[in-house]
Amino acid sequence: MYTVADYLLDRLKELGIDEVFGVPGDYNLQFLDHITARKDLEWIGNANELNAAYMADGYARTKGISALVTTFGVGELSAINGLAGSYAESIPVIEIVGSPTTTVQQNKKLVHHTLGDGDFLRFERIHEEVSAAIAHLSTENAPSEIDRVLTVAMTEKRPVYINLPIDIAEMKASAPTTPLNHTTDQLTTVETAILTKVEDALKQSKNPVVIAGHEILSYHIENQLEQFIQKFNLPITVLPFGKGAFNEEDAHYLGTYTGSTTDESMKNRVDHADLVLLLGAKLTDSATSGFSFGFTEKQMISIGSTEVLFYGEKQETVQLDRFVSALSTLSFSRFTDEMPSVKRLATPKVRDEKLTQKQFWQMVESFLLQGDTVVGEQGTSFFGLTNVPLKKDMHFIGQPLWGSIGYTFPSALGSQIANKESRHLLFIGDGSLQLTVQELGTAIREKLTPIVFVINNNGYTVEREIHGATEQYNDIPMWDYQKLPFVFGGTDQTVATYKVSTEIELDNAMTRARTDVDRLQWIEVVMDQNDAPVLLKKLAKIFAKQNS
Amino acid sequence: MYTVADYLLDRLKELGIDEVFGVPGDYNLQFLDHITARKDLEWIGNANELNAAYMADGYARTKGISALVTTFGVGELSAINGLAGSYAESIPVIEIVGSPTTTVQQNKKLVHHTLGDGDFLRFERIHEEVSAAIAHLSTENAPSEIDRVLTVAMTEKRPVYINLPIDIAEMKASAPTTPLNHTTDQLTTVETAILTKVEDALKQSKNPVVIAGHEILSYHIENQLEQFIQKFNLPITVLPFGKGAFNEEDAHYLGTYTGSTTDESMKNRVDHADLVLLLGAKLTDSATSGFSFGFTEKQMISIGSTEVLFYGEKQETVQLDRFVSALSTLSFSRFTDEMPSVKRLATPKVRDEKLTQKQFWQMVESFLLQGDTVVGEQGTSFFGLTNVPLKKDMHFIGQPLWGSIGYTFPSALGSQIANKESRHLLFIGDGSLQLTVQELGTAIREKLTPIVFVINNNGYTVEREIHGATEQYNDIPMWDYQKLPFVFGGTDQTVATYKVSTEIELDNAMTRARTDVDRLQWIEVVMDQNDAPVLLKKLAKIFAKQNS
Repeated sequence: MYTVADYLLDRLKELGIDEVFGVPGDYNLQFLDHITARKDLEWIGNANELNAAYMADGYARTKGISALVTTFGVGELSAINGLAGSYAESIPVIEIVGSPTTTVQQNKKLVHHTLGDGDFLRFERIHEEVSAAIAHLSTENAPSEIDRVLTVAMTEKRPVYINLPIDIAEMKASAPTTPLNHTTDQLTTVETAILTKVEDALKQSKNPVVIAGHEILSYHIENQLEQFIQKFNLPITVLPFGKGAFNEEDAHYLGTYTGSTTDESMKNRVDHADLVLLLGAKLTDSATSGFSFGFTEKQMISIGSTEVLFYGEKQETVQLDRFVSALSTLSFSRFTDEMPSVKRLATPKVRDEKLTQKQFWQMVESFLLQGDTVVGEQGTSFFGLTNVPLKKDMHFIGQPLWGSIGYTFPSALGSQIANKESRHLLFIGDGSLQLTVQELGTAIREKLTPIVFVINNNGYTVEREIHGATEQYNDIPMWDYQKLPFVFGGTDQTVATYKVSTEIELDNAMTRARTDVDRLQWIEVVMDQNDAPVLLKKLAKIFAKQNS
Repeated sequence: MYTVADYLLDRLKELGIDEVFGVPGDYNLQFLDHITARKDLEWIGNANELNAAYMADGYARTKGISALVTTFGVGELSAINGLAGSYAESIPVIEIVGSPTTTVQQNKKLVHHTLGDGDFLRFERIHEEVSAAIAHLSTENAPSEIDRVLTVAMTEKRPVYINLPIDIAEMKASAPTTPLNHTTDQLTTVETAILTKVEDALKQSKNPVVIAGHEILSYHIENQLEQFIQKFNLPITVLPFGKGAFNEEDAHYLGTYTGSTTDESMKNRVDHADLVLLLGAKLTDSATSGFSFGFTEKQMISIGSTEVLFYGEKQETVQLDRFVSALSTLSFSRFTDEMPSVKRLATPKVRDEKLTQKQFWQMVESFLLQGDTVVGEQGTSFFGLTNVPLKKDMHFIGQPLWGSIGYTFPSALGSQIANKESRHLLFIGDGSLQLTVQELGTAIREKLTPIVFVINNNGYTVEREIHGATEQYNDIPMWDYQKLPFVFGGTDQTVATYKVSTEIELDNAMTRARTDVDRLQWIEVVMDQNDAPVLLKKLAKIFAKQNS
């Protein structure tokens, strides 16, 4: 019998989902049967629900969308921090919560995984705060509600929540007959008017600059953005919260803009532009070194999916993907400014010396290849990577707005499941790894092969920089990072481990990792606990001030 | 300068808190300074926030109350599943969330750990669903709001939430001059009326039975309950959701009542009582084998902190602790029924045979000592322990209503921190351990010495019993459990490990664990993946039916 569960899964397939993440629980087991029965969907069981949510987020960043299955109450609340991160950073994750049967819910039974008060809507209400849409499936609304929330996920690029009672999942349904057509290319009247105003502004501008942000990645419109930039010869920079939105090897790329901490000449170019055109960008504290951007709203047009601003004045919003596509149809003269080129470092000399943060990130820059996916944990890693120029076709994953530590480890694994062709590099500190480490078991079971740089500097370096440099609360228990992969199921056939503390040792590990592509590479990088990337040191001072 | 932070910490000390759990984040670092500056409070840093919430829950179950510190947004949402469990099972945990400064919040700044929309109240709204009280501290209300929510935590035995902006924590305050007097012994008029009605019912009853539940543990009124039972010679049983509420070596104790799965003669005694007096008990599905209790509301008076029922009719509620204390002041004749004694098993013979679930739990029964704290993970362990009679002065921790897997590992550690004098035994399956395993690092750093039985039966046995016995989604990656403690910082000086699969091997491990009290004991118990405690097998069938 074709059921609501099958309908939902057919729709997920239609959106491009090939793998589903989550943790089993007795309210979702029967739904999982529908997944495992299909040859075209794979169930990826995670060690816990938060890790599953992070993994789904990483998968969606690479594949465009993802699905996560948890059980009612306990499962969904364990996952919610992951979903909130997806909401904050505009990542469409479909959360499917297996819930008790309609009868149990209607009769307000005191069943397990509830608060014992017969209120079965609490967790839905909670999820309203971090979801773009909520569906509680019933006998009346199941297929239409599924279509509605999936359409919201696709158009708003934010998580949606589906409460799926056991009996509703098993209810008879008809397969979809029309595709989920979530959007058209046709601009609305509002969008056309805004497009014209952007055109006018560009026509009048002598030295404009474009700042691209994270929504370019959310909507996967990197190519449409590039077409616009190339056609009109526009200089472009990206925020750290959006890194990877533009090809950093392209001549139009100025570098990553980080507010007051930006390289001086580039900072001047951006801050003194007569038009700063933000596309899908948000000027958050960590993306702008504490709001220290040097331009004002009088210079600024900002086009985002949740907010459009013209010189400080709010306008109606646009559908970002078709709007950015339409930018290439504008008509104004190409700019002829000479583009300052991004400073690229020569391959650094490798010495038999203790590894510093500075040297480490230079060696990382030389290690990158076109097409890599690079994942940087918020903290030392993200800020170390911010000023490393990416190669063409690279995909970058970080979480600078939500900034939940531990996020990147499962996220990198999810991203690699979404794109096994791309070499995946993860940079994560020991403090962050501890939060989500058990997903190593999943990595090994799924035969994933990321190159993981575990930066062992004995605790929460980012916090030490902000406050409490030598306080006990910034210490963490010292683990044996070399043996970790092997307790989680790894063997010499599936994992290679290295512990490096000098430049030569790192260089050797990198050389071997470059060709040892069939094993997970686990490179423990020992650095001083008081050493940090320059940007982090500056930023931490700014954050400390923001907190005072 | 004496600050709001100091005021809050003084109040926590007054309530009996000596250790505070949590994870540092830049919005709580300065508050942590106030903790580490004190000689009378210890900061216990956890590997992640959910684990911290579980550990705080276990601490509160043993010590009466606990405190948890997280950072805004990311930290509090990671912890929320733990807090929801505390709410469901009536455990008072004080959650203190370090939040951005009042200025940042009022100006709706787009700072990290927010959803980037300037809404700083979202996470508070979320917490309203799982907290008994919420305080957002400000210049005007700080000390009074602290006192208000702490009083709620103490009287309702449920979690409360304190949003503590950085600047408010550092604001000048005066030390408390009067104690937090949360309740009086004086019964209210309503309580007196209800007490009289209970007395009348007992006077008219020929064969009453008392069923004790989890709130006896929440309010730590085991002694008051015992006084009442002894004085009137009443037969008493406990629900699995409340196990430990009464001394199971006492002659009045009938056994654990589990609905239709209860031992026949005891079931008859309970089901045919002309008065079933429930004290602090909730008839949830997992506590009653799917609501299969054999008495009706016509036999039943139920006195709980959130609901009072007389023969199906709701009454105003009572303050449970003083009400149960007052029960001993009633005046009616002692009952003279002969008490059926609880079946206790002879020490089982130890053979050189593969260990079965049945034999395992019998050997566990012989291993228990008076005063132990026993922690049973929901699943195989909890249901295996349900019918093991406890010894005098034993404390039992489980989570049968909320039932969040992975909960017990941090919870057991938290409980041992609260009471280092009590030997702690934890029973947990491999599937559950994977969710929260990184807290092993904390266990070792804090030199904790629980005896941990890791039941390795290759996956989610409880789920297999309910649905999908051989489905891939009930498998988990196979870890090397023997080496686990050593990657998390353990050494031969701090940890002893055993792997047992026969009765003799288990017996040897138990013998050594009995005297090796200064090391953490890590006993991996290998059993068949299709073997399960009898109660679990029965209950799983009932749950499967509830889900159909």
